[in-house]
Amino acid sequence: MKLLVLNGPNLNMLGRRDPEQYGSETLEDIEQLLVDTFPRYEISFFQSNLEGELVEEIQSLTDSNRDGVIVNFGGYSHTSVAIRDALELVELPIVEVHLSNIHAREEFREQTLTGAVADGIITGFGNQSYVLGVHALEKLVEK
Amino acid sequence: MKLLVLNGPNLNMLGRRDPEQYGSETLEDIEQLLVDTFPRYEISFFQSNLEGELVEEIQSLTDSNRDGVIVNFGGYSHTSVAIRDALELVELPIVEVHLSNIHAREEFREQTLTGAVADGIITGFGNQSYVLGVHALEKLVEK
Amino acid sequence: MKLLVLNGPNLNMLGRRDPEQYGSETLEDIEQLLVDTFPRYEISFFQSNLEGELVEEIQSLTDSNRDGVIVNFGGYSHTSVAIRDALELVELPIVEVHLSNIHAREEFREQTLTGAVADGIITGFGNQSYVLGVHALEKLVEK
Amino acid sequence: MKLLVLNGPNLNMLGRRDPEQYGSETLEDIEQLLVDTFPRYEISFFQSNLEGELVEEIQSLTDSNRDGVIVNFGGYSHTSVAIRDALELVELPIVEVHLSNIHAREEFREQTLTGAVADGIITGFGNQSYVLGVHALEKLVEK
Amino acid sequence: MKLLVLNGPNLNMLGRRDPEQYGSETLEDIEQLLVDTFPRYEISFFQSNLEGELVEEIQSLTDSNRDGVIVNFGGYSHTSVAIRDALELVELPIVEVHLSNIHAREEFREQTLTGAVADGIITGFGNQSYVLGVHALEKLVEK
Amino acid sequence: MKLLVLNGPNLNMLGRRDPEQYGSETLEDIEQLLVDTFPRYEISFFQSNLEGELVEEIQSLTDSNRDGVIVNFGGYSHTSVAIRDALELVELPIVEVHLSNIHAREEFREQTLTGAVADGIITGFGNQSYVLGVHALEKLVEK
Amino acid sequence: MKLLVLNGPNLNMLGRRDPEQYGSETLEDIEQLLVDTFPRYEISFFQSNLEGELVEEIQSLTDSNRDGVIVNFGGYSHTSVAIRDALELVELPIVEVHLSNIHAREEFREQTLTGAVADGIITGFGNQSYVLGVHALEKLVEK
Amino acid sequence: MKLLVLNGPNLNMLGRRDPEQYGSETLEDIEQLLVDTFPRYEISFFQSNLEGELVEEIQSLTDSNRDGVIVNFGGYSHTSVAIRDALELVELPIVEVHLSNIHAREEFREQTLTGAVADGIITGFGNQSYVLGVHALEKLVEK
Amino acid sequence: MKLLVLNGPNLNMLGRRDPEQYGSETLEDIEQLLVDTFPRYEISFFQSNLEGELVEEIQSLTDSNRDGVIVNFGGYSHTSVAIRDALELVELPIVEVHLSNIHAREEFREQTLTGAVADGIITGFGNQSYVLGVHALEKLVEK
Amino acid sequence: MKLLVLNGPNLNMLGRRDPEQYGSETLEDIEQLLVDTFPRYEISFFQSNLEGELVEEIQSLTDSNRDGVIVNFGGYSHTSVAIRDALELVELPIVEVHLSNIHAREEFREQTLTGAVADGIITGFGNQSYVLGVHALEKLVEK
Amino acid sequence: MKLLVLNGPNLNMLGRRDPEQYGSETLEDIEQLLVDTFPRYEISFFQSNLEGELVEEIQSLTDSNRDGVIVNFGGYSHTSVAIRDALELVELPIVEVHLSNIHAREEFREQTLTGAVADGIITGFGNQSYVLGVHALEKLVEK
Amino acid sequence: MKLLVLNGPNLNMLGRRDPEQYGSETLEDIEQLLVDTFPRYEISFFQSNLEGELVEEIQSLTDSNRDGVIVNFGGYSHTSVAIRDALELVELPIVEVHLSNIHAREEFREQTLTGAVADGIITGFGNQSYVLGVHALEKLVEK
Repeated sequence: MKLLVLNGPNLNMLGRRDPEQYGSETLEDIEQLLVDTFPRYEISFFQSNLEGELVEEIQSLTDSNRDGVIVNFGGYSHTSVAIRDALELVELPIVEVHLSNIHAREEFREQTLTGAVADGIITGFGNQSYVLGVHALEKLVEK
Repeated sequence: MKLLVLNGPNLNMLGRRDPEQYGSETLEDIEQLLVDTFPRYEISFFQSNLEGELVEEIQSLTDSNRDGVIVNFGGYSHTSVAIRDALELVELPIVEVHLSNIHAREEFREQTLTGAVADGIITGFGNQSYVLGVHALEKLVEK
Repeated sequence: MKLLVLNGPNLNMLGRRDPEQYGSETLEDIEQLLVDTFPRYEISFFQSNLEGELVEEIQSLTDSNRDGVIVNFGGYSHTSVAIRDALELVELPIVEVHLSNIHAREEFREQTLTGAVADGIITGFGNQSYVLGVHALEKLVEK
Repeated sequence: MKLLVLNGPNLNMLGRRDPEQYGSETLEDIEQLLVDTFPRYEISFFQSNLEGELVEEIQSLTDSNRDGVIVNFGGYSHTSVAIRDALELVELPIVEVHLSNIHAREEFREQTLTGAVADGIITGFGNQSYVLGVHALEKLVEK
Repeated sequence: MKLLVLNGPNLNMLGRRDPEQYGSETLEDIEQLLVDTFPRYEISFFQSNLEGELVEEIQSLTDSNRDGVIVNFGGYSHTSVAIRDALELVELPIVEVHLSNIHAREEFREQTLTGAVADGIITGFGNQSYVLGVHALEKLVEK
Repeated sequence: MKLLVLNGPNLNMLGRRDPEQYGSETLEDIEQLLVDTFPRYEISFFQSNLEGELVEEIQSLTDSNRDGVIVNFGGYSHTSVAIRDALELVELPIVEVHLSNIHAREEFREQTLTGAVADGIITGFGNQSYVLGVHALEKLVEK
Repeated sequence: MKLLVLNGPNLNMLGRRDPEQYGSETLEDIEQLLVDTFPRYEISFFQSNLEGELVEEIQSLTDSNRDGVIVNFGGYSHTSVAIRDALELVELPIVEVHLSNIHAREEFREQTLTGAVADGIITGFGNQSYVLGVHALEKLVEK
Repeated sequence: MKLLVLNGPNLNMLGRRDPEQYGSETLEDIEQLLVDTFPRYEISFFQSNLEGELVEEIQSLTDSNRDGVIVNFGGYSHTSVAIRDALELVELPIVEVHLSNIHAREEFREQTLTGAVADGIITGFGNQSYVLGVHALEKLVEK
Repeated sequence: MKLLVLNGPNLNMLGRRDPEQYGSETLEDIEQLLVDTFPRYEISFFQSNLEGELVEEIQSLTDSNRDGVIVNFGGYSHTSVAIRDALELVELPIVEVHLSNIHAREEFREQTLTGAVADGIITGFGNQSYVLGVHALEKLVEK
Repeated sequence: MKLLVLNGPNLNMLGRRDPEQYGSETLEDIEQLLVDTFPRYEISFFQSNLEGELVEEIQSLTDSNRDGVIVNFGGYSHTSVAIRDALELVELPIVEVHLSNIHAREEFREQTLTGAVADGIITGFGNQSYVLGVHALEKLVEK
Repeated sequence: MKLLVLNGPNLNMLGRRDPEQYGSETLEDIEQLLVDTFPRYEISFFQSNLEGELVEEIQSLTDSNRDGVIVNFGGYSHTSVAIRDALELVELPIVEVHLSNIHAREEFREQTLTGAVADGIITGFGNQSYVLGVHALEKLVEK
Repeated sequence: MKLLVLNGPNLNMLGRRDPEQYGSETLEDIEQLLVDTFPRYEISFFQSNLEGELVEEIQSLTDSNRDGVIVNFGGYSHTSVAIRDALELVELPIVEVHLSNIHAREEFREQTLTGAVADGIITGFGNQSYVLGVHALEKLVEK
């Protein structure tokens, strides 16, 4: 299985951020965790703080030979119509993940514009949200 | 690991319900899937259509020797303050699951009163939501 | 024609309640009225104050040989997602009735979550709402 | 019994409109249905697309010797304070009917300003809504 | 001074309407009251239940030699953008009157779309609202 | 007739305030205008910028031998529950006046908490609003 | 005096719940406190987590010889139209109590549907809310 | 191509209205402009200030041999469910035009109930909105 | 125990106000009732209609040797941020009381800004609300 | 005439996107269509998925010798204050176009922050929206 | 430069209030700080807890020879239309200051009715907000 | 003291923008003003129109040896969750400045998502907002 893991704004700062809220691991730790947990999969990673770069990376998926995509758009999840429009063009399985439980934080994080066009959402399990996301993709790809 | 899987109203009707929305498997199929996937775990199941019976089953958790609980409260997820209050008393790991993506349906399903007091939420992967839920519990219990 | 007439919370108190708002007849009077008005029909009655029991009675309809159902969920009409979800599984004709005109009372009674998934609604005619409901079912069954 | 059946905007187009939503019969069919079903009643019909003409027809009821009135104001049901004000002057029994279930369509059709001042409302039964409406009037007139 | 007194829907029913709310006088009584109170003024009257006829009467004001206008649009005060647009074209003094205190009734009567483009509003004094309205016009015309 | 004219915050600044919005006359000019226009009436005046002093002046009305009261509470009209509660105790006729048309300004000025418990409201005629207010009182007192 | 003390969902868990919010006493402690404080009264207790059972217990009050009732519906206070409807049938004095100050917690706890049909409400005094509730009933019964 | 150009309330007043907002040309000028610009088309014009007459003109389209329709309902665009319902019956191409940019004026003009059921909308180009509207129809008819 | 009983706007008018809503006793009656009921306590009373005087009386509490305070801010309960800010500085027990049930009246009385920073609230028991308030203070002081 | 045609996020994906909603042509097809339709105009094109790049391209317009600009900001139309602020600096004629009718889709697409500062808007005509946009610019430039 | 520093309700309690939120200095400390920091300026101070007294102090500014004013209305900033109306009459430079960051506290503190009619606002810098306020006034006076 | 001054979208256009709203100076003028006013400070400047570049510049602050930061995010202040999330990671003092008074413009500019996580906000003093911002930082750094 060939996967893309797409991370949005500020996720490159993981581990330097308040560990009570997000855990103490860095984004590299998460990437390594995925590589170690799924050694037979070909996983590539992309992180950007720019809304438009995320749009373009999503657009490039239509021409790639990926089997699925894990997305965590951080703050853009709640505000970006542009990313949502881009996601709707993707015909691959999409799993949205969040480190923290978005339903247990500020009210404006409860709605996810991008998650509404994903296949499913996993939220609140720290770095394990990503691992569970890959497991979820496995099943979606099987269908 | 000893788990409780708690299902709310109408989930006993799974498989007879519109398969486009929820998949064609019955609740018994899901229960068997969990037993087969996690043969070494001791998993018990409880389903009720009554809000108060769900409250009481949650209350009984404090005296049980369970390690964690998977919950799917169906329609009560969006309306029950009573179940939410009961969940807040539980000190075990709690994972809320939904068969369909609650962010992709009617607006009144987007908020989950009960999920807000769970550790995390997995939504949109059909019966695999339950399997992923157990995987999530494994990690929560390890902590 | 075989019918079920399903009544929700507090309708068992009819006749003891403020007669200006609801009329002075009891629920038994209404049941007798239906039996007398439609002597050739087989009409059964179920009343419960418990949301979950109503859910279960609705679920049992799928396995019964009823031709249609008259429902009056009282206060649950405006709040119960669980009953609404159960009703959506029913493939029989469903007519929702209300004794008083729900559009002429408190604003929170104007919306009916359950009526939205019924075939039609009859509201405001006192016990005659039930008689009209059976007439409506006759036509729905004919189709 | 002498009745008036009052129809509002676009109901003169019935049968040419999308039959999935409203049924394939014309307004003339409905009128004939009422005449055939209630041969002993004196039923007159009035349809107008103009809010003010409907107001005036309602006003003329105070001087007529009608026993009751069936109304279907179509789009004006949800917006017309003027028609509502006119209806409040009428001391005859009033039954509002709708062909489709107004609670199962767009949200702005759920509230009925005019229905709130009628005796009762019958909604969702196609042309039978009118027949049931006359039955309802019979009982209201008896009181 | 040459005046037009413009009345909207249902005001032709005055006196037949609930006297507690509106007083027991008819519209003709009010017209006579104005003629008697202001014998030297040339006062004409127009009443219509049709939104569009009111629009057209307002439009005709631009070509007339009137000095001012008293308006009471009844239910249209709260809903008619078309009448408001027409009023904005009028360069004569405009006084809006209401028989009852619109701030002491239903919430949806508190806002007046048409009054917002009048010079001033007089509300709550029964038929005296009209007399006060003419007094107000006298002063507006003097300016 | 014995009257009280009660003015609220900032009305003592009239004439120094933006004349386009409120006219160029001072509060003393308005008081003199009333005295000149109604020489046979006994008119007293009270102005305060303090909400509580206005409450107390209103309370003192119950023990006075006034025939009616003209009120203009300025900014407090839209926010003061305390003044409204005090006004409800007054059994004299009350007329609320405003210099400018409150329906043609900021949205938060459209609602008048205090006007809702007055007999009527006159708004938008500059200092003539007060003169019209006394005329209105004359008729209210006659009743 | 014969009293009923009616407790809703999760109140049977008192003392096991976060003591900062609700105090450390159990429901049994509260019941004993009432018995000890009012030794001459005949006090019975009912607790249920089921909305419908609470409805039925309230309904049974009409046939009992109780003098008054203390109610604490927990989470149902804010959501249950059915309990509210049942309470409205009761002609005895009703006092609603809450352990914590419902105005100092989440916004959705500020409104109490059930308290709106009680005689009065006592909120925020821990177990003393119940004692004060009985004192309040004493006075209500005297009237 | 045979076209109908349908204008709503107050558009007959064009040119007498504030030219800054709407331009100084009259409705006749616009009609002449269309005739001159498209000499080979058969264009008919209809203007009415009455909501119901507009409904009826729209209804008559189903029986006419027109190829398309240009509509500008003025104030009714934002409030008329009746016109919207009528438009939905029309199977011809419909282009809604506005002289001014409805998104740059009062907030209540931003939503267009009628435009939502048109093929497209052209807003803000003064009388050229009509010319562009005919160009748009040309292409819609070609399809 | 040394107490302050603090009353806000219009409570000095008690007994002259509509007795159906508030009871027929005066504020002096209530004060005497408290003195008679609690003869061993040193109770002082303060009433003001001015928001700022209430703020200052509350501020003076920090320097007094009072044991607790009973407050009833009338209309200011629902609107005064200034009083709320002052109350937050007070470290004594605070009990807010209301004569009528604030949850059973107008919607804008349901929220109490000031009660949210009190220890508890007693509402709906007429003058007994004050007596119960002192009982509540006794227990709060004991802690 | 020298024009800039500015396209926002995901418009580079045209033709690969769901053709029912947007038509099957690519952005290049649209560009070619404009070049072919207006051979004598000098038209340049710019597309970006990045909000800031669009801001900068708009800023560069002030120094260019363009005569006007066609804009389609896709998802940013509904959310970007930054683009709106940039557009307000442009003194050239601006026409906003949309392929689909934004008033006939999700509610959050109905408002266009950027269109509110354009001269006019053309929405719903597929690629012809661009052609009509250039026609509109021709007239705006003439003024 | 001659300045007035105007403080509203509860600011006289500074230093006794929770120091985490507001700092531990008293209002006198702040006044001394300003005198020490700007020894050549003539600075007078006024504090009141009464809305009306603040209105009157603001009114007196028009007749004084002050060069500017620093205001901190505490809780009245968010609720007082009367103070706002008074401020609008002042033609001197006005700077509103707040000790804490009003955008980082309760939502109802985010809007400042009074700040909207000041020249600028400085919020969040403790007592330095006042010092910065004087610096800001210096520049405003220079203009 | 080493500072960063961070400017967002369109601030590079200052001076070309409407001078009534923002003053006639360019961003370079502001930068020079800061350098001239604070000759001993090391001040660096960064401006970008891209949300993501601003996020990244904020992220780089954690590794720099700056003492504080002045930010003006223009239109992003009101919409960017991503910038807010980035700011929350910064442990340096942060002062948000705005040229115009954000409380005196459109309602959607009143809330500042980014300012809520700054230490304080200075708004409305034109280029002096920046100078005051540096003064504020001096004091924040001293603490």
